[in-house]
Amino acid sequence: MDWLLFLVFFGACLGAGLTGGLFQPGEWYRNLRKPSWTPPDWVFPVTWFVLYGCMAAAGARAAVLPGSQYAMAFWALQIALNGLWTPVFFGLKRIRLGFVVVSCLWLAVFGAMVALWQVDWIAGALFAPYLLWVTIAASLNAAVWRLNPAVARGA
Amino acid sequence: MDWLLFLVFFGACLGAGLTGGLFQPGEWYRNLRKPSWTPPDWVFPVTWFVLYGCMAAAGARAAVLPGSQYAMAFWALQIALNGLWTPVFFGLKRIRLGFVVVSCLWLAVFGAMVALWQVDWIAGALFAPYLLWVTIAASLNAAVWRLNPAVARGA
Repeated sequence: MDWLLFLVFFGACLGAGLTGGLFQPGEWYRNLRKPSWTPPDWVFPVTWFVLYGCMAAAGARAAVLPGSQYAMAFWALQIALNGLWTPVFFGLKRIRLGFVVVSCLWLAVFGAMVALWQVDWIAGALFAPYLLWVTIAASLNAAVWRLNPAVARGA
Repeated sequence: MDWLLFLVFFGACLGAGLTGGLFQPGEWYRNLRKPSWTPPDWVFPVTWFVLYGCMAAAGARAAVLPGSQYAMAFWALQIALNGLWTPVFFGLKRIRLGFVVVSCLWLAVFGAMVALWQVDWIAGALFAPYLLWVTIAASLNAAVWRLNPAVARGA
C-alpha cells in the first residue's frame, strides 16, 4: 500500500471527524431519554478512530486499481456526509434531520462498500465494520427520536 | 463524461454545502466589522453552486483516467474540509479556528488542483476558480479576525 496515499485519505477522515471533537454531546444530550443499549460516550471516538484507519486503507487500496471510479466517487460522498451528522445533531440539536443525514450516510457507505468490493474484496470488507457502526448510529438516532418526541418536534 | 459518476461527486458537494444552508450568517455575523470588499450574502450560495458543478465535473473526468489516485484522495480531502468551515465559523462563532480550517482547505484544494492537472489539464483548470474563491474566503476570514480582535479572542 502507498502510505502517502493512505495518509491523504486518513486526513480526509480526520477532517470529517473533527466535527465530533468540536460539537460534543453536552447537557442537552445527557438529559435525553436513550435506549438501554446506548454505548457510553468514550466508545464513539475510539470506534471512529479504528474505522477511519479501515476507511483510509480501503481508499488507498482501491484508488490505484483500474475501474475504481465509482468506488472513489462514493468514498468522497460518504466522507462529505460523515462530517455532517455531528453539527446537525449536537450543534443544531435537530434529531429528525440527524436521522435523515445518517440515513443518507448509510446509503453512501453501502454504495461505497459495493463499489469497493467490485475492484478489491479486501477494500470492500474494510468498509463492513463501518456500515455496521452506521447502522447502530442510525438505530440510536431513531430510538432517541422515538423516546423524545417533544424534543424532536420542538428543535 | 459519465453523468452518473458526475452526480455522485455532485452529491458529495451538496452534502458538504448543506452546512452552508444549515449554519446561516445571523445577527452575530451582521454585527461584525467587515472589510469594504466583503461580498453580499447572496453571492456565496450562487458562487458555491457553480463551483460545485466544476468540482464534480473535474472529479468525474479524472476518476476514469489511470494514475488518478492522488487526484481522488485530494478530492476526498478537500470535500471533507469544505463542509467544516461553516459549522466552525457560523455555528461555533470561532473566527481563529475558522481561519485554520480555511487554510487547510486551501492547501487541500491546491493539492487537488495539482494532482488533477497531472492526469487531465481540463480537470485541473476546473479547480482554478475554486482555489481563487477559497483564497478570497480565507482573506475575508483573516480580515474579520483583524477587525474584531476582541470577538475573535472571546469566542
